[in-house]
Amino acid sequence: MKEKLADRLEEMENEELADLMRIIGRDDLISFAGGIPDTEIFPTDRLKQITEEVIANKGAEFYQYSSTEGNELLRKYLVDFLTERGLTPEFEEMIITSGSQQALDLVGKVFLNPGDRIVVEQPSYLGAIGAFKGYRPEIKEIPIEEDGIKVEALAVYLSQLKQRGESIKFIYLVPDYSNPSGARLSVKKRKEILNLAEKYNFYIIEDTAYSELNYYGQRLDYIKSYDSSDRVILLGSFSKFFVPGFRIAWIYNSKQFVQLVSKAKQNMDLASATAGQLILQRAGKEGLLAEQIERTKDFYRPRLEAMANALDDHFPQTAQWFRPEGGFFFWVKLPEGFDSRQLLEEALEQKVAFVTGSAFMTNPADGCRYLRLSFSNSQVDDIRAGIKILGQLIRRI
Amino acid sequence: MKEKLADRLEEMENEELADLMRIIGRDDLISFAGGIPDTEIFPTDRLKQITEEVIANKGAEFYQYSSTEGNELLRKYLVDFLTERGLTPEFEEMIITSGSQQALDLVGKVFLNPGDRIVVEQPSYLGAIGAFKGYRPEIKEIPIEEDGIKVEALAVYLSQLKQRGESIKFIYLVPDYSNPSGARLSVKKRKEILNLAEKYNFYIIEDTAYSELNYYGQRLDYIKSYDSSDRVILLGSFSKFFVPGFRIAWIYNSKQFVQLVSKAKQNMDLASATAGQLILQRAGKEGLLAEQIERTKDFYRPRLEAMANALDDHFPQTAQWFRPEGGFFFWVKLPEGFDSRQLLEEALEQKVAFVTGSAFMTNPADGCRYLRLSFSNSQVDDIRAGIKILGQLIRRI
Repeated sequence: MKEKLADRLEEMENEELADLMRIIGRDDLISFAGGIPDTEIFPTDRLKQITEEVIANKGAEFYQYSSTEGNELLRKYLVDFLTERGLTPEFEEMIITSGSQQALDLVGKVFLNPGDRIVVEQPSYLGAIGAFKGYRPEIKEIPIEEDGIKVEALAVYLSQLKQRGESIKFIYLVPDYSNPSGARLSVKKRKEILNLAEKYNFYIIEDTAYSELNYYGQRLDYIKSYDSSDRVILLGSFSKFFVPGFRIAWIYNSKQFVQLVSKAKQNMDLASATAGQLILQRAGKEGLLAEQIERTKDFYRPRLEAMANALDDHFPQTAQWFRPEGGFFFWVKLPEGFDSRQLLEEALEQKVAFVTGSAFMTNPADGCRYLRLSFSNSQVDDIRAGIKILGQLIRRI
Repeated sequence: MKEKLADRLEEMENEELADLMRIIGRDDLISFAGGIPDTEIFPTDRLKQITEEVIANKGAEFYQYSSTEGNELLRKYLVDFLTERGLTPEFEEMIITSGSQQALDLVGKVFLNPGDRIVVEQPSYLGAIGAFKGYRPEIKEIPIEEDGIKVEALAVYLSQLKQRGESIKFIYLVPDYSNPSGARLSVKKRKEILNLAEKYNFYIIEDTAYSELNYYGQRLDYIKSYDSSDRVILLGSFSKFFVPGFRIAWIYNSKQFVQLVSKAKQNMDLASATAGQLILQRAGKEGLLAEQIERTKDFYRPRLEAMANALDDHFPQTAQWFRPEGGFFFWVKLPEGFDSRQLLEEALEQKVAFVTGSAFMTNPADGCRYLRLSFSNSQVDDIRAGIKILGQLIRRI
């Protein structure tokens, strides 16, 4: 079979991801591996009631195709959602996608020729790297720090490219509580990156998957809120703050862009699943989505704090991390000489799991001293116990 | 924006499809345009009951991610479904996709480098042409006749290619009641094509979207049932004989192939929507899918017959068509000198719609004398009235 396959498959190989999927399937572990929401917080009773109401109201429509752009009422709900957050969209500027993952695949499909240049954070979301790699771009990684990507390094890179007559198609950013780093991009940097986009003529893919999951204080304004020329393509999802199983997410940009994306999506899955769109629309209208965003704060904050405290107590001072203010993840750098894959093997023997940093780098070797620790899906006691075990292993090695 | 976009977008332009989508949105027409099932046949009461039972039983699982390969119980139901139809799959050889459209996109992603050669029927399903074009292959069209693709022409093409040291990656076929032609591939040709695949080393993508929709007599065996070397990649869907809104379909081939496809799908949408998978699995287990397949016969057969009779009564003898035995479509060739786009404009003025043949050809000019007439979504009286109007327009021009 091999000789018949597309070359892009090699680029899409990801051993760490395969490891991750095997780990996620196991229920005998304290798992800091999967970055998925805890089913315990799902508003299952309310959702059951809403689903029954929607089926009663919609009848056969619940089971029919929806349009490629998505259910109009859901798109109008999203207009309200974004208007509350300081933007001024129209519903024709929104398109529903089958999860954010499809939005990333669509971005790749619409923008990328083989060899095109793009920039991602280092570390960056593995699903984004995977989706983009399918279109065979040249990916430049720019390191992040606690307040987000290093803008100076980005500016130097862009300037060097320009001297060679080259440029990038887009930069992909998760500005709030990035996966896997937990970093939040400062307001100052948000504006600086937008200025660079204007100066060097590229797009910003702003992925807000974790933006609602801030457990202290205020949301920051989207980069999109400073954008007056459709440079920022805003992606959003219901998966992290509400439920992920409907596979419903969205893209916001110009009508022209939505039309392009719609054409591409038509060839990818015709339309997203109808049931989830109708249920989410109603959950939005009834205020359940807004309530749920509030509930995430008290639900996940104690887990974040348990992990922060356990890391302080049990990890050596030579390991480096910072404390995020939202999202699902801590990103830990081990002292020199450590190999996170070896640590994972030993941790699995003691029934603790995490993801090695290599999954989040285009060159796996760059990630071998890093761990991503997710606190979203473990009870506080398990977080304390699991981090203690990891700390002991690190100190012993 | 244009200079930043991928080259593949030009290939994905499809004016006819855009026309079609505009027409489908209108409810003031007798529409023979959309190839979608009629909501009137959906078993909404039983589905409501099943959905409520599934939610009660599954709780939060109904809203959580499913695995990339899909719900294991649904894959096991599909094993039973295919075993009843003479195949011997294992559930690890099945993967759930987000509609057949995603299966087609996956096939493109897994097989195609730019410039690779593939074969499709002429005319062929526009969603397949669109999905494949995104990967920029060289598409060779081989004409169909009433008993399916012209195998002799295929053999000649393959032999010529071989003399030049070239070959194709795959052929894409809808063997039963093809969209748009309505043709059914004969048993003899099924075996001949498989022999050619062995001889010239290519894959067969066998899309069974309409295979259950046979309104007279017996199903023919899948090409897959003669395949002993994993050459046939079988695609199937619930959209046409059951309901399409869940966006759930499947691929059956080897475990190795399922693993490859799973890797690609992970980067496309992570997993298909959970709710539809759970509901379909239960509907299958309770026998509702099998009942529904039987119900389609008495539901769609009168519409097929009404269209056949109306075409006999009202279309000129110089127009050519054959009567399909299943599916949703008639494919009509107009007399020389006719232009189906012009006819469509005049028909729309009289509130009748269809799709021009150009949508189903890689070179739109090749389709300008053809119409696709779908009988799936119109009442018998409307079919008679609409065909009469079209016949009058054709005779008048």
